[in-house]
Amino acid sequence: MSVSTCSARRAGCADSFVLLASCPDRPGIVAAVTTFIAEHGGNILDLEQHVAVEDQMFFMRVEIARSGFSLGAAGFVPAFAPVAARFSMAWDIRDASTRQRMAIAVTREPHCLYDILARWQSGEWAVEIPLVFANRDDLRPVAAQFGIPMFVFPKTPENRLEQEQRELELLDTHRIDFIVLARYMQILSPAFIARYPNRILNIHHSFLPAFAGARPYHAAYERGVKIVGATSHYVTDELDRGPIIEQDVIRISHKDSVADMIRKGRDNEKIVLARAIRAHLEHRILVYRNRTVVFG
Amino acid sequence: MSVSTCSARRAGCADSFVLLASCPDRPGIVAAVTTFIAEHGGNILDLEQHVAVEDQMFFMRVEIARSGFSLGAAGFVPAFAPVAARFSMAWDIRDASTRQRMAIAVTREPHCLYDILARWQSGEWAVEIPLVFANRDDLRPVAAQFGIPMFVFPKTPENRLEQEQRELELLDTHRIDFIVLARYMQILSPAFIARYPNRILNIHHSFLPAFAGARPYHAAYERGVKIVGATSHYVTDELDRGPIIEQDVIRISHKDSVADMIRKGRDNEKIVLARAIRAHLEHRILVYRNRTVVFG
Amino acid sequence: MSVSTCSARRAGCADSFVLLASCPDRPGIVAAVTTFIAEHGGNILDLEQHVAVEDQMFFMRVEIARSGFSLGAAGFVPAFAPVAARFSMAWDIRDASTRQRMAIAVTREPHCLYDILARWQSGEWAVEIPLVFANRDDLRPVAAQFGIPMFVFPKTPENRLEQEQRELELLDTHRIDFIVLARYMQILSPAFIARYPNRILNIHHSFLPAFAGARPYHAAYERGVKIVGATSHYVTDELDRGPIIEQDVIRISHKDSVADMIRKGRDNEKIVLARAIRAHLEHRILVYRNRTVVFG
Amino acid sequence: MSVSTCSARRAGCADSFVLLASCPDRPGIVAAVTTFIAEHGGNILDLEQHVAVEDQMFFMRVEIARSGFSLGAAGFVPAFAPVAARFSMAWDIRDASTRQRMAIAVTREPHCLYDILARWQSGEWAVEIPLVFANRDDLRPVAAQFGIPMFVFPKTPENRLEQEQRELELLDTHRIDFIVLARYMQILSPAFIARYPNRILNIHHSFLPAFAGARPYHAAYERGVKIVGATSHYVTDELDRGPIIEQDVIRISHKDSVADMIRKGRDNEKIVLARAIRAHLEHRILVYRNRTVVFG
Repeated sequence: MSVSTCSARRAGCADSFVLLASCPDRPGIVAAVTTFIAEHGGNILDLEQHVAVEDQMFFMRVEIARSGFSLGAAGFVPAFAPVAARFSMAWDIRDASTRQRMAIAVTREPHCLYDILARWQSGEWAVEIPLVFANRDDLRPVAAQFGIPMFVFPKTPENRLEQEQRELELLDTHRIDFIVLARYMQILSPAFIARYPNRILNIHHSFLPAFAGARPYHAAYERGVKIVGATSHYVTDELDRGPIIEQDVIRISHKDSVADMIRKGRDNEKIVLARAIRAHLEHRILVYRNRTVVFG
Repeated sequence: MSVSTCSARRAGCADSFVLLASCPDRPGIVAAVTTFIAEHGGNILDLEQHVAVEDQMFFMRVEIARSGFSLGAAGFVPAFAPVAARFSMAWDIRDASTRQRMAIAVTREPHCLYDILARWQSGEWAVEIPLVFANRDDLRPVAAQFGIPMFVFPKTPENRLEQEQRELELLDTHRIDFIVLARYMQILSPAFIARYPNRILNIHHSFLPAFAGARPYHAAYERGVKIVGATSHYVTDELDRGPIIEQDVIRISHKDSVADMIRKGRDNEKIVLARAIRAHLEHRILVYRNRTVVFG
Repeated sequence: MSVSTCSARRAGCADSFVLLASCPDRPGIVAAVTTFIAEHGGNILDLEQHVAVEDQMFFMRVEIARSGFSLGAAGFVPAFAPVAARFSMAWDIRDASTRQRMAIAVTREPHCLYDILARWQSGEWAVEIPLVFANRDDLRPVAAQFGIPMFVFPKTPENRLEQEQRELELLDTHRIDFIVLARYMQILSPAFIARYPNRILNIHHSFLPAFAGARPYHAAYERGVKIVGATSHYVTDELDRGPIIEQDVIRISHKDSVADMIRKGRDNEKIVLARAIRAHLEHRILVYRNRTVVFG
Repeated sequence: MSVSTCSARRAGCADSFVLLASCPDRPGIVAAVTTFIAEHGGNILDLEQHVAVEDQMFFMRVEIARSGFSLGAAGFVPAFAPVAARFSMAWDIRDASTRQRMAIAVTREPHCLYDILARWQSGEWAVEIPLVFANRDDLRPVAAQFGIPMFVFPKTPENRLEQEQRELELLDTHRIDFIVLARYMQILSPAFIARYPNRILNIHHSFLPAFAGARPYHAAYERGVKIVGATSHYVTDELDRGPIIEQDVIRISHKDSVADMIRKGRDNEKIVLARAIRAHLEHRILVYRNRTVVFG
């Protein structure tokens, strides 16, 4: 299979492997890695590297065509280990043809859920969605209409950890790779989060770090800002403080009531979240010191 | 009912009337209209006016609270006629509580259809959607999943006018107020268009007037632009030449293949079309000399 | 002089008066004001109104052509007083032909100063710039090159209030109407600020309320945001907390070092500040509850 | 000198060499080039590569630290030739410490000239500006104020080629590397353009390919667009058809007259042109099939 048959090359070709790697910066890293790939017959479909000068850290994403590459994902590991060791590299190789399994968590707001399910159903993303889970029943018809099973775990301060335990079992059973909080209005416990490090994506309806916490559009109205934003980030123990994956903004004016801001903001939220999910699916994200490198 | 109970005032309060008017500019128009409204107990919820200096034309949109206003939409017509006559005014009064009836036309691309139906189903818009019509069968499952009847009229050069006749009958039967071409890949005949003047909205997947016609993303790629756009406009006899309602753009780069541009462009298209539909639904649009005044 | 000779009508016609007014909302305000204007032969060039529903407050800006208007700015005051009293109106009438006198305060960063002086010199704004003042000498050549006198008041914690007194005397002498802090890196005392309420414009190099205070680009880098902003606001006693006039943002990525963000941010800062200055010059801004209404 | 002393690394470190290369795509290019660099002690400060799949072409930009690199720009040429030959590579190595020499051409509009000269004077760019040339005298005071010699060559249809000859001699004398048309309202002859291939940057005041040619804001107003743009491109024989380097847009509305659009557009034009100049100065641009690859 030749390169040119992969029509959406940059969007991640299913017939490829993706190597993500980071290590302390020093001369010769790119040469060593690309030579290794060339020696095993690999054609580089895409290569991006970045050096965070302040931290003297090197980051790299390489997409290698399956065709002609003499190592598969399994064979890659022992073969590449000496190269990685030479540079004290943290690294990960993934087979782009393996579909990730995504769970979606929701509460009442449907716009992100609709948007995600429409993308999934129309085949825009290479992803499986085995289930939706929620703390309320409101959006059950939406999941049902797209044929996705929905599980409801109502939470009280008393039963919260117990319910989370049941959620985790459900996620395990369905071999979920990562979770998208699509306007999920519950705070997850540190124990839950620890099970999915850098694998829980949230959408917060403000331009973080401004207006973290509850009711950000109300706070934005009170402050009289002229622009409001949305932020997708990985969830960490600190509320709304995890590494930011994607942000975008929309312009508002004095004419916009809080209700207007909420309505306009929805369009921004769903697009920002969708971009973050896509970057995650295509293995474009490296996290370092609570910041992300998102390769383009 | 007091003003403050209308939570999304600017977004169009169902308990109001909307007056759209235009006339040659001269002193005293605003005073005459607002005095007329005050004399009949009307409270102005929102007033916007615009003067197109080059054309010496005056445009106005006034939203009047139903509560306290001694004239209904029917009573308004004869009472206002002398004021309108004095200024040679073209005008229209609408009861915001009357839901418009919208038909959607589609072909193969589903993203705008999903987006519109999700907004409708979640109650974002005050609109009825009695039907979807199409020239192909592809999107029947999407309409079905939202419970909207879909009618398919395959068209050939030979049967096109005949099929349009059947479409018009269907639209009549369902008392359709306006039509949204949601990536409908057929050109409508002048006779069809004449039946819905300034009441057929199209989304074109380019920043018009650049890249009118077929395959605009391919043309954009060929030209090497760094930004691509989408344009929603009213349909007129001249292809992609009707009055523009809304446009927006997204940034691309040399990294983006045509397939990437098509994919990224979809998000832009659906948002631009949704904004245009909302403006149409809220009676915010006046057309003059193939341009629009879209009150904010 | 007819309307059509005012080529940049919306940008504020020198042959006009501008009325800014606010009052508690109730029916009949627009009718009363526009009827008053019509009765005195005034032609309304532009009218914008806004109701802040949450606060039940009404805001209005009316631009009246000088030609035909039987009242001048002086005659307007007693004639309009009864109308204003009826609605408990706060209001202000200004003669657009009177050029405002602006002082600029700077420290070391030159980009906003260059941008403002270039606009002034090329006649983009109807403004006088009698002087620049600074706490350091660095930008003296820039002011000199544009022929603007520059005064330097070095400040220490000990002499700060004394130096401010000298600054205030200088501003008085030159009959300064408003002050622009063009990356002025000193905090003004409450006494100084009280002399120019809603007449000191600042540019802060972040998207407020995010990253208030010192070194916002460093803080933005640390937080790992994907977008950085700039904010122009009126100065109040609370640092970076005054009413926001204008904001805009630029997209950044992991590739951008702090130095890159500073460099890219400069372009954003100067444009945002220029827009805010223009809105102030054209009497488009009303302040209410630490928020602004900026008529478009 | 270590890497970390280059404070604005991505913005182009003066202590580096920049290699730009393109060739037909095939496996092993990155490995061959980076191995060559590593073998000569070079540390890669930045590497970006791109494959245009449709054209099966490979493009690369590599920034190599001067420190430790055993080859200078002169030594590089013969040493690298065999590698380049192996891949049929078009390539170019530049010493980033060498300041480019830029000429600016203007007519009447000053905003781009002010902006460029302010950036130059404040040291934002590593560039020399030996001269400004013009077809009219209007902007002589601006050039003078920044201490840049200005030469005026008034052109008529009769003397145009003769004047161009004099301009070319002037540019030769001053060893000009590239020319920026900063709202220069003259069309250059093919002979002139041929002397500076991909070395004449223009700013066109529209979102090309929309509104090419004269008076684009008037045309945009007539068409009723909701967004206007600016485009910087390399000049070729076909008017406004050269390879696009950078574009951006601003939102307008029905409220904006042509004069408003011209005024608002200026801010966009100067920023777009400045970004294009910076990319050119940092050797980030490769041209292929009338399109650009602009490495970020």
